[in-house]
Amino acid sequence: MSATPIPTPDLTPPDIVRCAFMEVVVTDLAASRAFYVDVLGLVVTEESDTEVYLRTFEEFIHHNLVLRQGPVAAVASLAYRVRTPEDVDRAQAYYEAMGCRTERRATGFVRGVGDSVRVEDPLGFPYEFFYEVDHVERLAWRYDLYNPGALVRLDHFNQVTPDVPRGLAYMEALGFRVTEDIEDSDGIVYAAWMRRKDTVHDTALTGGNGPRVHHIAFATHEKHNIIHICDKLGALRLSDRIERGPGRHGVSNAFYLYLLDPDGHRVEIYTQDYYTGDPDNPVVKWDVHDNQRRDWWGNPVVPSWYTEASLVLDLDGNVRAVEVREEPTELAVTVGADGFSYTREGDMEKGFKLGNTL
Amino acid sequence: MSATPIPTPDLTPPDIVRCAFMEVVVTDLAASRAFYVDVLGLVVTEESDTEVYLRTFEEFIHHNLVLRQGPVAAVASLAYRVRTPEDVDRAQAYYEAMGCRTERRATGFVRGVGDSVRVEDPLGFPYEFFYEVDHVERLAWRYDLYNPGALVRLDHFNQVTPDVPRGLAYMEALGFRVTEDIEDSDGIVYAAWMRRKDTVHDTALTGGNGPRVHHIAFATHEKHNIIHICDKLGALRLSDRIERGPGRHGVSNAFYLYLLDPDGHRVEIYTQDYYTGDPDNPVVKWDVHDNQRRDWWGNPVVPSWYTEASLVLDLDGNVRAVEVREEPTELAVTVGADGFSYTREGDMEKGFKLGNTL
Amino acid sequence: MSATPIPTPDLTPPDIVRCAFMEVVVTDLAASRAFYVDVLGLVVTEESDTEVYLRTFEEFIHHNLVLRQGPVAAVASLAYRVRTPEDVDRAQAYYEAMGCRTERRATGFVRGVGDSVRVEDPLGFPYEFFYEVDHVERLAWRYDLYNPGALVRLDHFNQVTPDVPRGLAYMEALGFRVTEDIEDSDGIVYAAWMRRKDTVHDTALTGGNGPRVHHIAFATHEKHNIIHICDKLGALRLSDRIERGPGRHGVSNAFYLYLLDPDGHRVEIYTQDYYTGDPDNPVVKWDVHDNQRRDWWGNPVVPSWYTEASLVLDLDGNVRAVEVREEPTELAVTVGADGFSYTREGDMEKGFKLGNTL
Amino acid sequence: MSATPIPTPDLTPPDIVRCAFMEVVVTDLAASRAFYVDVLGLVVTEESDTEVYLRTFEEFIHHNLVLRQGPVAAVASLAYRVRTPEDVDRAQAYYEAMGCRTERRATGFVRGVGDSVRVEDPLGFPYEFFYEVDHVERLAWRYDLYNPGALVRLDHFNQVTPDVPRGLAYMEALGFRVTEDIEDSDGIVYAAWMRRKDTVHDTALTGGNGPRVHHIAFATHEKHNIIHICDKLGALRLSDRIERGPGRHGVSNAFYLYLLDPDGHRVEIYTQDYYTGDPDNPVVKWDVHDNQRRDWWGNPVVPSWYTEASLVLDLDGNVRAVEVREEPTELAVTVGADGFSYTREGDMEKGFKLGNTL
Repeated sequence: MSATPIPTPDLTPPDIVRCAFMEVVVTDLAASRAFYVDVLGLVVTEESDTEVYLRTFEEFIHHNLVLRQGPVAAVASLAYRVRTPEDVDRAQAYYEAMGCRTERRATGFVRGVGDSVRVEDPLGFPYEFFYEVDHVERLAWRYDLYNPGALVRLDHFNQVTPDVPRGLAYMEALGFRVTEDIEDSDGIVYAAWMRRKDTVHDTALTGGNGPRVHHIAFATHEKHNIIHICDKLGALRLSDRIERGPGRHGVSNAFYLYLLDPDGHRVEIYTQDYYTGDPDNPVVKWDVHDNQRRDWWGNPVVPSWYTEASLVLDLDGNVRAVEVREEPTELAVTVGADGFSYTREGDMEKGFKLGNTL
Repeated sequence: MSATPIPTPDLTPPDIVRCAFMEVVVTDLAASRAFYVDVLGLVVTEESDTEVYLRTFEEFIHHNLVLRQGPVAAVASLAYRVRTPEDVDRAQAYYEAMGCRTERRATGFVRGVGDSVRVEDPLGFPYEFFYEVDHVERLAWRYDLYNPGALVRLDHFNQVTPDVPRGLAYMEALGFRVTEDIEDSDGIVYAAWMRRKDTVHDTALTGGNGPRVHHIAFATHEKHNIIHICDKLGALRLSDRIERGPGRHGVSNAFYLYLLDPDGHRVEIYTQDYYTGDPDNPVVKWDVHDNQRRDWWGNPVVPSWYTEASLVLDLDGNVRAVEVREEPTELAVTVGADGFSYTREGDMEKGFKLGNTL
Repeated sequence: MSATPIPTPDLTPPDIVRCAFMEVVVTDLAASRAFYVDVLGLVVTEESDTEVYLRTFEEFIHHNLVLRQGPVAAVASLAYRVRTPEDVDRAQAYYEAMGCRTERRATGFVRGVGDSVRVEDPLGFPYEFFYEVDHVERLAWRYDLYNPGALVRLDHFNQVTPDVPRGLAYMEALGFRVTEDIEDSDGIVYAAWMRRKDTVHDTALTGGNGPRVHHIAFATHEKHNIIHICDKLGALRLSDRIERGPGRHGVSNAFYLYLLDPDGHRVEIYTQDYYTGDPDNPVVKWDVHDNQRRDWWGNPVVPSWYTEASLVLDLDGNVRAVEVREEPTELAVTVGADGFSYTREGDMEKGFKLGNTL
Repeated sequence: MSATPIPTPDLTPPDIVRCAFMEVVVTDLAASRAFYVDVLGLVVTEESDTEVYLRTFEEFIHHNLVLRQGPVAAVASLAYRVRTPEDVDRAQAYYEAMGCRTERRATGFVRGVGDSVRVEDPLGFPYEFFYEVDHVERLAWRYDLYNPGALVRLDHFNQVTPDVPRGLAYMEALGFRVTEDIEDSDGIVYAAWMRRKDTVHDTALTGGNGPRVHHIAFATHEKHNIIHICDKLGALRLSDRIERGPGRHGVSNAFYLYLLDPDGHRVEIYTQDYYTGDPDNPVVKWDVHDNQRRDWWGNPVVPSWYTEASLVLDLDGNVRAVEVREEPTELAVTVGADGFSYTREGDMEKGFKLGNTL
């Protein structure tokens, strides 16, 4: 798969506004609802015995996350909002021109969404494009409902794919713009971040066995909101749901936390990256050996963060097979017997921060 | 002037990316530099005996504010970045088609900016459009340089004009989208906020005697940054530079503070409004009698905030004459003998918060 | 009353640990419960049809506030914890030696408290001293229960009395230590703050018609907690409960907010004063004409804050008569036709911040 | 040494007010000054070629930390303020009655401090007791000088000693009160926290090879101040100075960060523990196997944090020999092949958070 470049259709791609929602299959809906609603405080727009529709406090569309009961934990859709109804047509035509399977539903795949197309994208991900969506109350001013760790926006997706440059070429043709990446001096790209809206990313490609979904990220207003989520997980004796962080990213400059939901789907809580909306927004390139790229404070990245991710479904609802990354992994080149990281470029010694996990 | 609608050219308007910088004439450059650099901590990109070029911590273009020594305090330019070099041509053609005076300079009007056009817009404001600009270091990661009240982005301008709907029609044709406004039940519009980037505004039109500039606003990351600025002004015995706030806006939902610089130019410090980038972003309409519209906590607005603003210059550098607003003012209809405001719609009594300023 | 100095008993005063709780009579218990529990989020330890016992998140004694239904809004007790059971005896003897009426109850005056003495103190306040108290769960670690504006400690009381120096002499003999005061160059004392625990105060004496209680103050961890309380009051359309603030005090250096409960009892929310526990802790003296003494940012003090306060009860439950202050009031000497305040000592002009309330 | 109980003198111990300063020997004064002043922003009260006297923003005594150039990195004094000049006499007598070597200097051992006694305490630590000290400006209100990570108070010391219960008995006789400890079901005590002022501790005893000093801790106002210190260390490419954290302690409930200075002396940055001043303040006992005791979020404790500490000097300035702890170490019983920790009491499985350091 990764040997062949992805063809670029000679068509206008859809005008993508932003990442809008993810549909996630969970194996125990009650347990997942407890995590996302009772612990994280997402707002329930509506729900049934088999589905829960959730949104953030500043959202005005029907949902940012759909939990659906199912037999195997997986991601069923990474959905983007497009600028006009016609952009759904453009999306369908564009993916069909790439030879991708598509499915169009005038009344949507999930509640609250109208005319929509789902595709099996060239990287194997279930992408979705829609314009029509129910509006609901934007709860931004409803401070009587806020919790101390209030999630206010969906910020981004993060996808795992074996060949990052191959994926990037396709995404850039689709209209995404790279804001930051992680490379090495041999030109191997380990990860890249790309945007449609004015933030560091709407999605990122992380090099690894894929197609898999690395995480979905929600934004808070301030850093103390994220700290509260950790404190609350401690109070609930659920601290083992904290996989990594909190910390400051090098990439994106955001303050972050990674959690694992009851099925192991990864959720990032994220705040305070920077504006990227200018056409010549400078791309920030990080050396894979820079120990501050993933955590600005040099705190170690737990290995599971590199290796684990969520499976994805095809349009029939079957789990997609995972292709192995052939290039070196970021984990391998940065830690362990063959890895190397530095705090200060040129330093020959490894800092204790590197050693403490191995 | 306000009787006549502004003609809409049958031309493609420039694709405006965002508000980018303001050029401000100050009467004592040393005093202004002390305020913006020593107190507020803006970063000096470069300076001379007559000019200081300042930027925020997350900015990568040359400047967000130019202070220029001059005989009369005024605003010389409200400058917007456009998407391509050709959009400068489009801006020039568009304003000329409206019958506006324009001036094009291939090497810019200020340092750091290349090809640029300045116009006397239909409302009398000195608007500027440019694409070419020097890139400088984005200091986002330079936490060694941050101060406790660090200003990280230029957020918006705010302009005073007598006839808000007349101005709005022109701005919407130019490509701006309204996000919020303040009206009354008679349909009088007192103010409107409009955006190009994904925030609540790049500029706002406030009803009043104009053309005048109400303020320029810089963003911080968190609310405590704004509180620190107040604390620092207290420590420097400059608390009388605080005109209004800090507080929470109803409109925009942002946390705010208004300061006055040594010439009386108003500066807002601002944080945490919401994402507005969707094409059908809901417009929020506020009743002018709602006492929480300007301050969500019902704290009184000091009268000077309604009545005072900065003069603007024409392209010859002369101060523009100010036209009087004919419709009722927001101040008059909300406070005083003839005004009325409520905390809870339908309440007949005035709360004590209204009374304490009169 | 104020002409005669208060006699100092030749007895060891009780060893007072800290201010511990206030008993407040409210005229509509349901409305008061809604304010203190639903809005402010105090924790209910227990309650009945006529009483609600409330505590803060870090408290381990039974309550910090008792709301009791009654016919007239008033304060029934300002209660201090003493170091040992014997200190209750000492308190009783000490007040009796001053000629004060006392009442001792081995099983306490309110639930959760054991052996206790209430007194009508020389200033007319219903003071109470107790050691025995039920322990309850300290909820400090229960982040699953925290709200965004969580009140974590009772910080202090504030009392209004006509003759501050007369009251101070008695309080200092009782063992309190002054930390800050407000004076003028004629030696008139307008207010004084005094402590037992290691903070700026356990109580303060504010010059005015008394005996009345100015407020009770609860502490939060951070400033954003206080801002959230304002935001929530806005969301509930209760912004007219905000009397003053938020702001930074000059005196105490704390960040503050004043609210009025449904009966007009004043509640301060307070955070981040400084450690005062050293025996030679420097006393900070503020000039009454310093416009930053009450609000470090120079924001005006609403007149009601100076003039309004809660009545107090005697040991029979009757409202105490209020004696008028004979010396000039802080309000009179700082604002209005005869008042004067400065931002910078020596400045002759009044700043706009002074003028905007009058 | 640890076999013999420490005798309790039949004398009144000194009335200790609080931990006040530490004198630390550093091997490269310029490097240490750069760390404490340029990075951490402590305030220089005075300095010479061989010494730097530093204080926090809210301190009014001459210093909280003395850096002294010397040949071997070590701690020369852990100094406590006492309530009266006579308490210095009491301290001297008390330690002499325990058979400890003491040295009294009427003009102090360091600048700014007057009459003082240093002792070699029964655990081998260089304790110091003083009352007389120069007052300096309390910079609490000097927000013009604050940095974003401003250290506002000295909070506590932490000492390593082989036999914690033996040390505790001596400290309790001296007047300290235990607030929290870490034990196991066999009654082995791994660490204990004890206070004089109204916080969780003025010092703690941590079980390990000693006498050594584990760390000195400074307080900030809010959590974002601590996060900024991490961010700044990242910007300076000094992230390897971050040994552990930031995180939330289980013990003390405070938000924390551990840094290592250029000599490896450990510095904690700490905020928001709770009031402990009541005589019956509940003691919190933590199970050594509770994975949230050291970090409420279950993040792993880096082994160096358990094993490394600063040497101490005797009164001749020679390094004290270190005695080995005979009981099991906290590190050994909680992690590794023979250790066990749980997130939820009764859980048999180890969480991934435990595994990621091994």
